[in-house]
Amino acid sequence: MTKLTKQEQLTEGKAKMIFATNDPQVVWIHSKNQATALNGKRKVQIDEKGYYTNQISFRLLKYLKQNGVANHLVEQVSETDITAKKLAMIPLEVVIRNYASGHFVTRFNVEKMLHLDPPVTEFYYKSDELDDPMINDSQIQALHIADENQIEFLRQTALKINQLLEVVFKKAHIKLVDFKVEFGFDQDGNIILGDEISPDNMRLVDENTDESLDKDVFRKNLGSLTDVYKVVLSRLQTELGE
Amino acid sequence: MTKLTKQEQLTEGKAKMIFATNDPQVVWIHSKNQATALNGKRKVQIDEKGYYTNQISFRLLKYLKQNGVANHLVEQVSETDITAKKLAMIPLEVVIRNYASGHFVTRFNVEKMLHLDPPVTEFYYKSDELDDPMINDSQIQALHIADENQIEFLRQTALKINQLLEVVFKKAHIKLVDFKVEFGFDQDGNIILGDEISPDNMRLVDENTDESLDKDVFRKNLGSLTDVYKVVLSRLQTELGE
Repeated sequence: MTKLTKQEQLTEGKAKMIFATNDPQVVWIHSKNQATALNGKRKVQIDEKGYYTNQISFRLLKYLKQNGVANHLVEQVSETDITAKKLAMIPLEVVIRNYASGHFVTRFNVEKMLHLDPPVTEFYYKSDELDDPMINDSQIQALHIADENQIEFLRQTALKINQLLEVVFKKAHIKLVDFKVEFGFDQDGNIILGDEISPDNMRLVDENTDESLDKDVFRKNLGSLTDVYKVVLSRLQTELGE
Repeated sequence: MTKLTKQEQLTEGKAKMIFATNDPQVVWIHSKNQATALNGKRKVQIDEKGYYTNQISFRLLKYLKQNGVANHLVEQVSETDITAKKLAMIPLEVVIRNYASGHFVTRFNVEKMLHLDPPVTEFYYKSDELDDPMINDSQIQALHIADENQIEFLRQTALKINQLLEVVFKKAHIKLVDFKVEFGFDQDGNIILGDEISPDNMRLVDENTDESLDKDVFRKNLGSLTDVYKVVLSRLQTELGE
């Protein structure tokens, strides 16, 4: 493989900037020092946030790949950047919930941290304009977002990711409350995991203290976000290596 | 069977009053002259509405029963009343959509009357307090409302009802846009169709004029509700008999 070099910027999201590379099938992803909430309506710059999300996401993507979950990771190219397979993203967020929290609690008026066994799977249609509405299988098919087999593949893959992540977080004395993943098609038409896997997209709770170790610290102003991300990274390094 | 007599009132809903009978397994259902919108926040008395919803619902329930869809209908006992099997209702609304309308249009920003083929199936959790939120299969299971097999039975039965209703309405030159049904357990533990099947719970559009023939006439103040219910009843009488 020729050495990959960063080229023109392709797009900028809430937490990432994506650049082309000299390989048309590979993009360069930079994790930004920005935290957002309320679908981007609240934005704050946080020093070193990009470092922590990137370090955590890199380790989790590598671990998932080693355990059979195909994903976009190519390699880590700096402390805040990875290279990744270019994907045509499917406009769905796939959410897995092991415990009730956030929207699920208010939507159904259930007790916070109610254990959900088997885990709950939800799909949301990615649309800022529509405020990412929840969408069910038959609606996804009617809107031609994905067909029945693709939906089932997304569901089963998200559940497999959940099992693998729970193993690691359990060893790290962290409860995996819920998380969101996104998928896309690679150049060969395979559906593979994309996006970032970090506490920006999960709810994590310390098994012993019940403290939040995720973006809820920012959403609810509970303290320094990077302090808790540092705890997560440090525990994952113990389990997954430097 | 001994003659059924109406006894004490058990409950009163937005459009119906339910009474006990001398048979503990049978209830007496009276269709009220009341129309509601906005989850009951708007209420209006409309003369003869109970007559039309009851007449329409009786004919459709009879037709569905004749075609293999088990339901609660026992017999029509007056122009506004039926007797029905007593059911322990499942707190779900099952919605089938053949064309985009109402919430579906605003939720996903699609064109009104977009043809949905295959039809869309949706479940809503019946809770006035929570405003009847949409709920998916895994959420229904997590909240122990129904198990996987029961959910699939509800879905397949609603789709069968849709096929049967479409046949009748097509002959009556009416497009069946969408409808809502509810189910319950009878004394033997079978899931059977309950509630009322009337233009209160469906969207119907005249095939030739594109005019609404359902409760949207009330919701949107488009004219006399009983005038259009009269049209629906009259066309169904032609197809299903007096």
